[in-house]
Amino acid sequence: MGKEEELPPVLGCYSGQFLIFVPFLPIFLKRFMTPEREAKIKRVLSHRQGSLAVVMENVHDPHNISAVMRTCDAVGVQDVYILTTIIPRHKRFGKTSSASALGWLTIHEYDNTELCMKAVKERYGKVFATHLGVESVSLFDLNLAESVALVFGNEHAGVSEECLSHCDGNFIIPQVGMVQSLNISVACAITLYEAFRQRQIAGLYDGHCRLQEGEWKTLANKWRMYQ
Amino acid sequence: MGKEEELPPVLGCYSGQFLIFVPFLPIFLKRFMTPEREAKIKRVLSHRQGSLAVVMENVHDPHNISAVMRTCDAVGVQDVYILTTIIPRHKRFGKTSSASALGWLTIHEYDNTELCMKAVKERYGKVFATHLGVESVSLFDLNLAESVALVFGNEHAGVSEECLSHCDGNFIIPQVGMVQSLNISVACAITLYEAFRQRQIAGLYDGHCRLQEGEWKTLANKWRMYQ
Repeated sequence: MGKEEELPPVLGCYSGQFLIFVPFLPIFLKRFMTPEREAKIKRVLSHRQGSLAVVMENVHDPHNISAVMRTCDAVGVQDVYILTTIIPRHKRFGKTSSASALGWLTIHEYDNTELCMKAVKERYGKVFATHLGVESVSLFDLNLAESVALVFGNEHAGVSEECLSHCDGNFIIPQVGMVQSLNISVACAITLYEAFRQRQIAGLYDGHCRLQEGEWKTLANKWRMYQ
Repeated sequence: MGKEEELPPVLGCYSGQFLIFVPFLPIFLKRFMTPEREAKIKRVLSHRQGSLAVVMENVHDPHNISAVMRTCDAVGVQDVYILTTIIPRHKRFGKTSSASALGWLTIHEYDNTELCMKAVKERYGKVFATHLGVESVSLFDLNLAESVALVFGNEHAGVSEECLSHCDGNFIIPQVGMVQSLNISVACAITLYEAFRQRQIAGLYDGHCRLQEGEWKTLANKWRMYQ
Protein backbone atom coordinates (compact mmCIF):
# COMPACT_ATOMS: atom_id res chain seq x y z
CA MET A 1 0.00 0.00 0.00
CA GLY A 2 1.20 3.47 -0.78
CA LYS A 3 1.84 6.12 1.74
CA GLU A 4 0.20 9.51 1.82
CA GLU A 5 2.69 11.82 0.19
CA GLU A 6 2.85 15.52 0.83
CA LEU A 7 3.50 17.81 -2.08
CA PRO A 8 6.54 20.07 -1.74
CA PRO A 9 5.80 23.66 -0.68
CA VAL A 10 5.02 26.15 -3.45
CA LEU A 11 8.30 27.29 -4.97
CA GLY A 12 7.10 30.86 -5.47
CA CYS A 13 8.33 31.14 -9.02
CA TYR A 14 6.37 31.59 -12.22
CA SER A 15 8.33 32.01 -15.37
CA GLY A 16 5.47 33.21 -17.52
CA GLN A 17 6.38 30.58 -20.09
CA PHE A 18 3.84 27.79 -20.38
CA LEU A 19 6.31 24.98 -21.05
CA ILE A 20 8.28 25.76 -17.95
CA PHE A 21 5.18 26.36 -15.88
CA VAL A 22 3.41 23.05 -16.64
CA PRO A 23 5.50 20.87 -14.30
CA PHE A 24 4.71 23.24 -11.46
CA LEU A 25 1.00 23.52 -12.27
CA PRO A 26 -0.18 21.23 -9.47
CA ILE A 27 1.97 23.10 -6.98
CA PHE A 28 0.77 26.41 -8.35
CA LEU A 29 -2.87 25.31 -8.16
CA LYS A 30 -2.45 24.11 -4.61
CA ARG A 31 -1.71 27.70 -3.60
CA PHE A 32 -5.15 28.75 -4.83
CA MET A 33 -7.17 25.89 -3.40
CA THR A 34 -9.40 26.50 -0.44
CA PRO A 35 -8.41 24.59 2.70
CA GLU A 36 -11.83 22.91 2.58
CA ARG A 37 -11.25 21.63 -0.94
CA GLU A 38 -7.77 20.41 -0.08
CA ALA A 39 -9.12 18.68 3.03
CA LYS A 40 -11.89 17.03 1.02
CA ILE A 41 -9.42 15.68 -1.56
CA LYS A 42 -7.24 14.27 1.22
CA ARG A 43 -10.24 12.78 3.02
CA VAL A 44 -11.58 11.13 -0.12
CA LEU A 45 -8.15 9.79 -1.13
CA SER A 46 -7.62 8.38 2.35
CA HIS A 47 -10.84 6.35 1.93
CA ARG A 48 -10.07 5.07 -1.57
CA GLN A 49 -9.86 1.27 -1.59
CA GLY A 50 -6.87 0.12 -3.61
CA SER A 51 -7.97 -3.49 -3.14
CA LEU A 52 -11.50 -3.21 -4.52
CA ALA A 53 -12.38 -2.77 -8.20
CA VAL A 54 -15.31 -3.04 -10.57
CA VAL A 55 -15.23 -4.63 -14.03
CA MET A 56 -18.06 -3.85 -16.44
CA GLU A 57 -18.15 -6.29 -19.33
CA ASN A 58 -20.12 -5.04 -22.34
CA VAL A 59 -22.40 -2.87 -20.22
CA HIS A 60 -24.22 -1.06 -22.95
CA ASP A 61 -26.31 1.76 -21.49
CA PRO A 62 -24.24 4.89 -20.68
CA HIS A 63 -26.70 5.72 -17.89
CA ASN A 64 -25.97 2.40 -16.24
CA ILE A 65 -22.24 3.00 -16.57
CA SER A 66 -22.45 6.44 -15.04
CA ALA A 67 -24.70 5.21 -12.23
CA VAL A 68 -22.16 2.47 -11.44
CA MET A 69 -19.38 5.06 -11.50
CA ARG A 70 -21.28 7.25 -9.07
CA THR A 71 -21.60 4.34 -6.65
CA CYS A 72 -17.91 3.46 -7.12
CA ASP A 73 -16.97 7.00 -6.13
CA ALA A 74 -19.38 6.88 -3.18
CA VAL A 75 -17.83 3.74 -1.63
CA GLY A 76 -14.22 4.57 -2.52
CA VAL A 77 -13.61 2.32 -5.52
CA GLN A 78 -10.92 4.11 -7.56
CA ASP A 79 -10.35 1.66 -10.42
CA VAL A 80 -13.04 0.75 -12.92
CA TYR A 81 -12.34 -1.65 -15.79
CA ILE A 82 -14.50 -1.29 -18.88
CA LEU A 83 -14.35 -4.25 -21.23
CA THR A 84 -16.07 -3.99 -24.62
CA THR A 85 -15.89 -7.03 -26.86
CA ILE A 86 -19.37 -7.37 -28.39
CA ILE A 87 -20.26 -3.67 -28.30
CA PRO A 88 -18.26 -0.72 -29.65
CA ARG A 89 -15.85 1.06 -27.35
CA HIS A 90 -17.73 3.82 -25.52
CA LYS A 91 -17.23 7.33 -26.80
CA ARG A 92 -18.49 8.81 -23.58
CA PHE A 93 -19.87 7.57 -20.27
CA GLY A 94 -23.32 9.07 -19.82
CA LYS A 95 -22.14 12.60 -19.20
CA THR A 96 -25.71 13.79 -18.91
CA SER A 97 -26.43 12.06 -15.62
CA SER A 98 -23.24 11.98 -13.54
CA ALA A 99 -20.22 13.08 -15.50
CA SER A 100 -18.84 14.46 -12.30
CA ALA A 101 -18.17 10.98 -10.87
CA LEU A 102 -16.12 10.02 -13.94
CA GLY A 103 -13.43 12.60 -13.23
CA TRP A 104 -12.60 11.11 -9.84
CA LEU A 105 -12.11 7.55 -11.05
CA THR A 106 -9.31 5.73 -12.89
CA ILE A 107 -10.82 4.13 -15.97
CA HIS A 108 -9.12 1.16 -17.64
CA GLU A 109 -10.52 0.36 -21.07
CA TYR A 110 -10.01 -2.98 -22.84
CA ASP A 111 -11.44 -4.70 -25.90
CA ASN A 112 -9.74 -8.03 -25.22
CA THR A 113 -11.07 -10.23 -22.43
CA GLU A 114 -7.83 -12.09 -21.80
CA LEU A 115 -5.72 -8.96 -21.50
CA CYS A 116 -8.31 -7.29 -19.29
CA MET A 117 -8.68 -10.24 -16.93
CA LYS A 118 -4.90 -10.74 -16.83
CA ALA A 119 -4.48 -7.15 -15.67
CA VAL A 120 -7.28 -7.54 -13.12
CA LYS A 121 -5.98 -10.84 -11.73
CA GLU A 122 -2.46 -9.47 -11.41
CA ARG A 123 -3.70 -6.69 -9.19
CA TYR A 124 -6.55 -8.24 -7.16
CA GLY A 125 -6.56 -11.39 -5.09
CA LYS A 126 -9.96 -12.71 -6.17
CA VAL A 127 -12.33 -12.03 -9.06
CA PHE A 128 -16.05 -12.68 -8.59
CA ALA A 129 -18.76 -12.33 -11.23
CA THR A 130 -22.47 -11.71 -10.85
CA HIS A 131 -23.79 -14.83 -12.47
CA LEU A 132 -26.48 -17.36 -11.73
CA GLY A 133 -24.65 -20.60 -12.34
CA VAL A 134 -23.61 -23.83 -10.72
CA GLU A 135 -21.95 -23.13 -7.38
CA SER A 136 -23.12 -19.50 -7.27
CA VAL A 137 -23.09 -18.16 -3.73
CA SER A 138 -25.09 -15.38 -2.14
CA LEU A 139 -23.50 -11.93 -2.16
CA PHE A 140 -23.79 -11.95 1.62
CA ASP A 141 -21.60 -15.05 1.86
CA LEU A 142 -18.65 -13.43 0.04
CA ASN A 143 -15.64 -12.02 1.83
CA LEU A 144 -15.45 -8.57 0.30
CA ALA A 145 -12.92 -7.20 2.75
CA GLU A 146 -10.16 -9.08 0.93
CA SER A 147 -8.56 -7.87 -2.30
CA VAL A 148 -11.30 -8.39 -4.86
CA ALA A 149 -12.58 -7.34 -8.28
CA LEU A 150 -16.30 -7.62 -9.03
CA VAL A 151 -17.51 -8.31 -12.57
CA PHE A 152 -20.87 -7.12 -13.89
CA GLY A 153 -22.03 -8.21 -17.34
CA ASN A 154 -24.11 -7.01 -20.23
CA GLU A 155 -27.69 -5.92 -19.45
CA HIS A 156 -29.16 -8.81 -21.45
CA ALA A 157 -26.51 -11.49 -21.88
CA GLY A 158 -24.85 -11.17 -18.47
CA VAL A 159 -21.19 -12.08 -17.97
CA SER A 160 -19.72 -14.04 -20.91
CA GLU A 161 -18.44 -17.59 -20.61
CA GLU A 162 -14.96 -16.42 -21.59
CA CYS A 163 -14.92 -13.83 -18.84
CA LEU A 164 -16.36 -16.32 -16.33
CA SER A 165 -13.54 -18.75 -17.10
CA HIS A 166 -11.11 -16.22 -15.60
CA CYS A 167 -13.16 -15.69 -12.42
CA ASP A 168 -12.68 -17.36 -9.04
CA GLY A 169 -16.41 -17.64 -8.42
CA ASN A 170 -19.92 -16.44 -9.15
CA PHE A 171 -22.38 -14.75 -6.84
CA ILE A 172 -26.01 -13.76 -6.95
CA ILE A 173 -28.02 -11.13 -5.17
CA PRO A 174 -30.78 -13.10 -3.46
CA GLN A 175 -34.29 -12.24 -4.57
CA VAL A 176 -37.52 -13.55 -3.05
CA GLY A 177 -40.06 -11.74 -5.23
CA MET A 178 -42.22 -12.52 -8.21
CA VAL A 179 -40.09 -10.42 -10.57
CA GLN A 180 -36.53 -11.68 -10.88
CA SER A 181 -34.77 -8.68 -12.28
CA LEU A 182 -32.62 -5.96 -10.76
CA ASN A 183 -31.07 -3.28 -12.94
CA ILE A 184 -27.26 -3.49 -13.16
CA SER A 185 -26.80 -0.11 -11.45
CA VAL A 186 -28.97 -1.27 -8.56
CA ALA A 187 -27.23 -4.66 -8.41
CA CYS A 188 -23.83 -2.97 -8.38
CA ALA A 189 -24.87 -0.55 -5.64
CA ILE A 190 -26.16 -3.38 -3.43
CA THR A 191 -22.90 -5.29 -3.98
CA LEU A 192 -20.57 -2.36 -3.40
CA TYR A 193 -22.36 -1.28 -0.24
CA GLU A 194 -22.09 -4.81 1.13
CA ALA A 195 -18.35 -4.48 0.43
CA PHE A 196 -18.42 -1.09 2.18
CA ARG A 197 -20.16 -2.58 5.22
CA GLN A 198 -17.70 -5.46 5.51
CA ARG A 199 -14.68 -3.22 4.94
CA GLN A 200 -15.88 -0.69 7.48
CA ILE A 201 -16.07 -3.46 10.08
CA ALA A 202 -12.59 -4.62 8.99
CA GLY A 203 -11.22 -1.10 9.59
CA LEU A 204 -10.47 -0.39 5.94
CA TYR A 205 -12.07 3.05 6.16
CA ASP A 206 -9.92 4.20 9.04
CA GLY A 207 -8.37 7.03 7.02
CA HIS A 208 -5.06 5.34 6.23
CA CYS A 209 -4.09 5.50 2.57
CA ARG A 210 -4.77 2.19 0.82
CA LEU A 211 -3.73 3.19 -2.69
CA GLN A 212 -0.74 1.86 -4.55
CA GLU A 213 2.68 3.49 -4.16
CA GLY A 214 2.68 6.90 -5.84
CA GLU A 215 -1.04 6.77 -6.68
CA TRP A 216 -1.97 9.20 -3.94
CA LYS A 217 0.32 11.91 -5.28
CA THR A 218 -0.70 11.35 -8.91
CA LEU A 219 -4.41 11.49 -8.09
CA ALA A 220 -4.06 14.45 -5.73
CA ASN A 221 -2.24 16.42 -8.44
CA LYS A 222 -4.88 15.51 -11.00
CA TRP A 223 -7.80 16.29 -8.70
CA ARG A 224 -6.39 19.65 -7.68
CA MET A 225 -6.54 20.68 -11.32
CA TYR A 226 -10.30 20.05 -11.47
CA GLN A 227 -11.26 22.96 -9.28
CA MET B 1 -49.10 -12.62 12.03
CA GLY B 2 -51.47 -14.51 9.80
CA LYS B 3 -51.38 -18.16 9.04
CA GLU B 4 -51.07 -19.66 5.59
CA GLU B 5 -54.60 -20.45 4.52
CA GLU B 6 -55.48 -23.12 2.01
CA LEU B 7 -58.21 -22.45 -0.50
CA PRO B 8 -61.11 -24.93 -0.56
CA PRO B 9 -60.95 -27.53 -3.31
CA VAL B 10 -62.48 -26.64 -6.66
CA LEU B 11 -66.24 -27.10 -6.49
CA GLY B 12 -66.45 -28.43 -10.03
CA CYS B 13 -69.31 -26.25 -11.09
CA TYR B 14 -69.40 -23.48 -13.65
CA SER B 15 -72.73 -21.85 -14.17
CA GLY B 16 -71.85 -20.03 -17.36
CA GLN B 17 -73.26 -16.85 -15.82
CA PHE B 18 -70.62 -14.26 -15.01
CA LEU B 19 -72.25 -12.87 -11.85
CA ILE B 20 -72.45 -16.26 -10.31
CA PHE B 21 -69.05 -17.27 -11.51
CA VAL B 22 -67.10 -14.30 -10.13
CA PRO B 23 -66.98 -15.44 -6.49
CA PHE B 24 -65.55 -18.75 -7.60
CA LEU B 25 -63.04 -17.24 -10.03
CA PRO B 26 -59.96 -17.73 -7.82
CA ILE B 27 -60.96 -21.30 -7.15
CA PHE B 28 -61.63 -21.86 -10.83
CA LEU B 29 -58.31 -20.35 -11.84
CA LYS B 30 -56.43 -22.45 -9.33
CA ARG B 31 -57.55 -25.53 -11.24
CA PHE B 32 -55.76 -24.23 -14.34
CA MET B 33 -52.58 -23.05 -12.69
CA THR B 34 -49.42 -25.02 -13.20
CA PRO B 35 -47.99 -26.56 -10.03
CA GLU B 36 -44.83 -24.47 -10.61
CA ARG B 37 -46.81 -21.24 -10.68
CA GLU B 38 -48.76 -22.20 -7.57
CA ALA B 39 -45.52 -23.12 -5.82
CA LYS B 40 -43.92 -19.83 -6.79
CA ILE B 41 -46.85 -17.82 -5.43
CA LYS B 42 -46.69 -19.75 -2.16
CA ARG B 43 -42.92 -19.34 -1.94
CA VAL B 44 -43.05 -15.62 -2.59
CA LEU B 45 -45.91 -15.08 -0.14
CA SER B 46 -44.05 -17.05 2.52
CA HIS B 47 -41.14 -14.58 2.20
CA ARG B 48 -43.25 -11.41 2.26
CA GLN B 49 -42.31 -9.25 5.24
CA GLY B 50 -45.42 -7.94 6.94
CA SER B 51 -43.24 -5.85 9.27
CA LEU B 52 -41.26 -3.92 6.63
CA ALA B 53 -42.67 -1.13 4.47
CA VAL B 54 -41.55 1.69 2.22
CA VAL B 55 -43.00 5.21 2.17
CA MET B 56 -42.27 7.40 -0.84
CA GLU B 57 -43.03 11.05 -0.13
CA ASN B 58 -43.45 13.17 -3.25
CA VAL B 59 -41.15 10.97 -5.32
CA HIS B 60 -41.70 12.52 -8.70
CA ASP B 61 -40.08 10.38 -11.40
CA PRO B 62 -42.20 7.34 -12.35
CA HIS B 63 -39.01 5.47 -13.25
CA ASN B 64 -37.72 5.93 -9.72
CA ILE B 65 -41.04 4.74 -8.31
CA SER B 66 -41.06 1.63 -10.45
CA ALA B 67 -37.40 0.88 -9.66
CA VAL B 68 -38.20 1.14 -5.94
CA MET B 69 -41.20 -1.14 -6.44
CA ARG B 70 -39.02 -3.69 -8.19
CA THR B 71 -36.62 -3.75 -5.26
CA CYS B 72 -39.55 -3.96 -2.81
CA ASP B 73 -40.79 -7.05 -4.61
CA ALA B 74 -37.27 -8.50 -4.69
CA VAL B 75 -36.76 -8.29 -0.90
CA GLY B 76 -40.33 -9.17 0.05
CA VAL B 77 -41.76 -5.77 0.96
CA GLN B 78 -45.50 -6.05 0.28
CA ASP B 79 -46.75 -2.64 1.37
CA VAL B 80 -45.71 0.58 -0.32
CA TYR B 81 -47.10 3.94 0.80
CA ILE B 82 -47.15 6.71 -1.79
CA LEU B 83 -47.66 10.16 -0.34
CA THR B 84 -48.18 13.08 -2.73
CA THR B 85 -48.63 16.52 -1.18
CA ILE B 86 -46.58 18.88 -3.36
CA ILE B 87 -46.92 16.91 -6.59
CA PRO B 88 -50.09 15.62 -8.26
CA ARG B 89 -51.30 12.15 -7.49
CA HIS B 90 -49.63 9.71 -9.87
CA LYS B 91 -51.74 8.50 -12.74
CA ARG B 92 -49.44 5.56 -13.32
CA PHE B 93 -46.23 4.18 -11.87
CA GLY B 94 -43.71 3.95 -14.70
CA LYS B 95 -45.36 1.08 -16.49
CA THR B 96 -42.74 1.19 -19.21
CA SER B 97 -39.88 -0.02 -17.05
CA SER B 98 -41.24 -2.51 -14.51
CA ALA B 99 -45.01 -2.61 -14.48
CA SER B 100 -44.77 -6.22 -13.56
CA ALA B 101 -43.54 -5.43 -10.02
CA LEU B 102 -46.52 -3.17 -9.37
CA GLY B 103 -49.03 -5.98 -9.63
CA TRP B 104 -47.44 -7.93 -6.79
CA LEU B 105 -47.44 -5.08 -4.27
CA THR B 106 -50.09 -3.46 -2.09
CA ILE B 107 -50.08 0.26 -2.84
CA HIS B 108 -51.46 2.75 -0.30
CA GLU B 109 -51.94 6.23 -1.74
CA TYR B 110 -52.32 9.36 0.40
CA ASP B 111 -52.32 13.09 -0.22
CA ASN B 112 -52.33 14.03 3.48
CA THR B 113 -49.13 13.59 5.48
CA GLU B 114 -50.82 13.25 8.86
CA LEU B 115 -53.24 10.57 7.71
CA CYS B 116 -50.50 8.68 5.90
CA MET B 117 -48.09 8.73 8.82
CA LYS B 118 -50.87 7.83 11.25
CA ALA B 119 -51.63 4.73 9.18
CA VAL B 120 -47.93 3.86 8.95
CA LYS B 121 -47.26 4.34 12.67
CA GLU B 122 -50.27 2.26 13.62
CA ARG B 123 -48.91 -0.67 11.68
CA TYR B 124 -45.12 -0.45 12.10
CA GLY B 125 -43.08 -0.17 15.28
CA LYS B 126 -40.58 2.41 14.04
CA VAL B 127 -40.45 4.90 11.19
CA PHE B 128 -37.05 6.01 9.88
CA ALA B 129 -36.43 8.62 7.18
CA THR B 130 -33.47 9.05 4.86
CA HIS B 131 -32.37 12.51 5.91
CA LEU B 132 -29.08 14.19 6.65
CA GLY B 133 -29.93 16.00 9.84
CA VAL B 134 -28.96 16.35 13.46
CA GLU B 135 -28.67 12.93 15.08
CA SER B 136 -28.75 11.08 11.76
CA VAL B 137 -27.27 7.62 12.08
CA SER B 138 -25.66 5.37 9.51
CA LEU B 139 -27.94 2.92 7.73
CA PHE B 140 -25.68 0.15 9.02
CA ASP B 141 -26.40 1.13 12.63
CA LEU B 142 -30.17 0.69 12.28
CA ASN B 143 -32.00 -2.37 13.50
CA LEU B 144 -34.00 -3.27 10.41
CA ALA B 145 -35.08 -6.67 11.64
CA GLU B 146 -37.67 -5.01 13.86
CA SER B 147 -41.04 -3.76 12.59
CA VAL B 148 -40.09 -0.69 10.56
CA ALA B 149 -41.21 1.64 7.79
CA LEU B 150 -38.59 3.48 5.74
CA VAL B 151 -39.32 6.91 4.29
CA PHE B 152 -37.72 8.21 1.09
CA GLY B 153 -38.32 11.79 0.01
CA ASN B 154 -38.58 13.89 -3.11
CA GLU B 155 -35.64 13.73 -5.55
CA HIS B 156 -34.70 17.35 -4.89
CA ALA B 157 -36.25 18.46 -1.60
CA GLY B 158 -35.82 15.20 0.33
CA VAL B 159 -38.19 14.29 3.16
CA SER B 160 -40.36 17.22 4.32
CA GLU B 161 -40.16 18.68 7.80
CA GLU B 162 -43.79 17.73 8.41
CA CYS B 163 -43.11 14.12 7.50
CA LEU B 164 -39.88 14.08 9.55
CA SER B 165 -41.81 15.25 12.61
CA HIS B 166 -43.68 11.94 12.55
CA CYS B 167 -40.53 9.83 12.26
CA ASP B 168 -38.60 8.09 15.04
CA GLY B 169 -35.22 8.89 13.50
CA ASN B 170 -33.18 9.78 10.44
CA PHE B 171 -30.51 7.78 8.71
CA ILE B 172 -27.98 8.34 5.99
CA ILE B 173 -26.21 6.06 3.58
CA PRO B 174 -22.51 6.72 4.26
CA GLN B 175 -20.58 8.10 1.30
CA VAL B 176 -16.83 8.66 1.14
CA GLY B 177 -16.51 10.00 -2.42
CA MET B 178 -16.17 13.34 -4.13
CA VAL B 179 -19.73 13.27 -5.47
CA GLN B 180 -22.35 13.20 -2.72
CA SER B 181 -25.38 11.96 -4.55
CA LEU B 182 -27.07 8.61 -4.89
CA ASN B 183 -30.25 8.25 -6.92
CA ILE B 184 -33.33 7.41 -4.81
CA SER B 185 -33.77 4.03 -6.48
CA VAL B 186 -30.16 3.15 -5.66
CA ALA B 187 -30.47 4.51 -2.11
CA CYS B 188 -33.65 2.50 -1.56
CA ALA B 189 -32.05 -0.69 -2.93
CA ILE B 190 -29.03 -0.33 -0.63
CA THR B 191 -31.35 0.25 2.34
CA LEU B 192 -33.75 -2.59 1.59
CA TYR B 193 -30.94 -5.07 1.00
CA GLU B 194 -29.39 -4.15 4.33
CA ALA B 195 -32.82 -4.91 5.81
CA PHE B 196 -32.83 -8.17 3.87
CA ARG B 197 -29.38 -9.10 5.21
CA GLN B 198 -30.35 -8.36 8.80
CA ARG B 199 -33.68 -10.13 8.50
CA GLN B 200 -32.13 -13.17 6.91
CA ILE B 201 -29.77 -13.48 9.88
CA ALA B 202 -32.76 -13.00 12.22
CA GLY B 203 -34.55 -15.91 10.49
CA LEU B 204 -37.33 -13.79 9.00
CA TYR B 205 -36.95 -15.48 5.60
CA ASP B 206 -37.45 -18.97 6.98
CA GLY B 207 -40.57 -19.58 4.92
CA HIS B 208 -43.13 -18.97 7.66
CA CYS B 209 -45.88 -16.57 6.67
CA ARG B 210 -45.32 -13.13 8.13
CA LEU B 211 -48.29 -11.36 6.64
CA GLN B 212 -51.29 -10.06 8.54
CA GLU B 213 -54.26 -12.30 9.26
CA GLY B 214 -56.15 -13.01 6.05
CA GLU B 215 -53.61 -11.21 3.84
CA TRP B 216 -52.11 -14.44 2.53
CA LYS B 217 -55.45 -15.66 1.20
CA THR B 218 -56.41 -12.30 -0.28
CA LEU B 219 -53.09 -11.91 -2.06
CA ALA B 220 -52.97 -15.50 -3.23
CA ASN B 221 -56.43 -15.13 -4.77
CA LYS B 222 -55.41 -11.88 -6.45
CA TRP B 223 -52.11 -13.22 -7.73
CA ARG B 224 -53.64 -16.39 -9.14
CA MET B 225 -55.77 -14.19 -11.38
CA TYR B 226 -52.69 -12.60 -12.96
CA GLN B 227 -51.59 -15.66 -14.85
